[in-house]
Amino acid sequence: MSDFAADKSHPRYQSLLMRHRLEMAAKAGMLADSALIAHGRGEAYDYLLGETTIPSAHDATMEALAHLQNADSAVISLNGNAIALAGKELMQLASLLKIPVEVNIFYRTPERMKALLNHLYEIRDTNRLDVEILGENPDAKIPGLEGPRAKCCESGIYNSDVILVPLEDGDRCEALVAMGKVVLVIDLNPLSRSAKMGSVTIVDELSRVAENLLSGAMQKIIRTPRTDYDNNNILQSAIDHITSSFSS
Amino acid sequence: MSDFAADKSHPRYQSLLMRHRLEMAAKAGMLADSALIAHGRGEAYDYLLGETTIPSAHDATMEALAHLQNADSAVISLNGNAIALAGKELMQLASLLKIPVEVNIFYRTPERMKALLNHLYEIRDTNRLDVEILGENPDAKIPGLEGPRAKCCESGIYNSDVILVPLEDGDRCEALVAMGKVVLVIDLNPLSRSAKMGSVTIVDELSRVAENLLSGAMQKIIRTPRTDYDNNNILQSAIDHITSSFSS
Repeated sequence: MSDFAADKSHPRYQSLLMRHRLEMAAKAGMLADSALIAHGRGEAYDYLLGETTIPSAHDATMEALAHLQNADSAVISLNGNAIALAGKELMQLASLLKIPVEVNIFYRTPERMKALLNHLYEIRDTNRLDVEILGENPDAKIPGLEGPRAKCCESGIYNSDVILVPLEDGDRCEALVAMGKVVLVIDLNPLSRSAKMGSVTIVDELSRVAENLLSGAMQKIIRTPRTDYDNNNILQSAIDHITSSFSS
Repeated sequence: MSDFAADKSHPRYQSLLMRHRLEMAAKAGMLADSALIAHGRGEAYDYLLGETTIPSAHDATMEALAHLQNADSAVISLNGNAIALAGKELMQLASLLKIPVEVNIFYRTPERMKALLNHLYEIRDTNRLDVEILGENPDAKIPGLEGPRAKCCESGIYNSDVILVPLEDGDRCEALVAMGKVVLVIDLNPLSRSAKMGSVTIVDELSRVAENLLSGAMQKIIRTPRTDYDNNNILQSAIDHITSSFSS
């Protein structure tokens, strides 16, 4: 990423950096054709959020962290866009929490899986992280899904009780919820099926969420999940924020 | 585009078709890296509009048509995404209105210009259209812009009194307005600089706008532009529509 030349003082530096990371990942064969379009949809919602972590999203992030810290068997599911945008930070988080990551992509091809896994191995080695990277040899299936997108690892996604799914497709999110898991969703569109389906939904941009989870985990204060947590309230707060951005 | 296999009865057929057209154009070298991301932003706003032409957008479309029909020297400016999404329909419109089109792209490279011009020549020949296609040999500059993006043709954009700019960048839109032209903007984001800057802004998806302009032009009823037209009212109506989609 060393050829990214934008000035850090540019008001949209972070957004331009994320766009650059996506374009680099596309060139490296890590992404499906639709990945850049999906990123653009995210950009539009982030623009409406003011490209900032709103208070309700920060609350949701801390609640998600509590679930990850208190799980019997947590896992971070990683797809192409998640790895491109925040692969390093999510690997650091997994290392701190001592949980595995699992590469799990919607359009699974051997070439893309290899490019993504190699990129994660490189992150692990460069940063000397102790993280189990799953996904290469799936040996289980998510019930209710068809074809390659059902594939997963028994010791990772399949047996997890808590799963963090950044930028997840609605169908798969629904299937994971149906398995009885606590599903932690990161999605910029508060109206999406994934957002509505999640146990805890963080309406925020992935690289900001990853940084917030990471700095929360580094404090080593372990909270327990709240019993009165209301995901619909959190979504409504994001909707209210977006709506108000149209009238200002 | 013959390998597009989605079922026409799919509720999101049109959106999937547009995505497919973009992906094909990207493969043909017609688009800049950022084009797919820009399309994704458009998809998000179109989703909020309900993927439909709202009444105020239809009014704006008919007002834009009146300006094109009453111009001394109108032109349609075409960039990569516009050509990919509605190249044929915009060429048919230009033919009906007897006005030129001009290829004018933000990231101008000889390779992209050639790919886009060849695609337009093919559309012209296949559909036996009588349209002047400008842009290959720019001989003028838009005042206030720097570098290759200032380039334009004297007999096209430079001397036009009315210009249709689908999916135009805010800076260039501003520069065209500063030249005293009537600038007809097509943009799905009612908050964008282009949208605010336009003389007549159509907040609608490009392929739907092109179809509406085409069917309006085919009726051969020539209206004159309204003297009491208020672009801000039209934008507010789009904003109200989007805001209401969050509360339903």
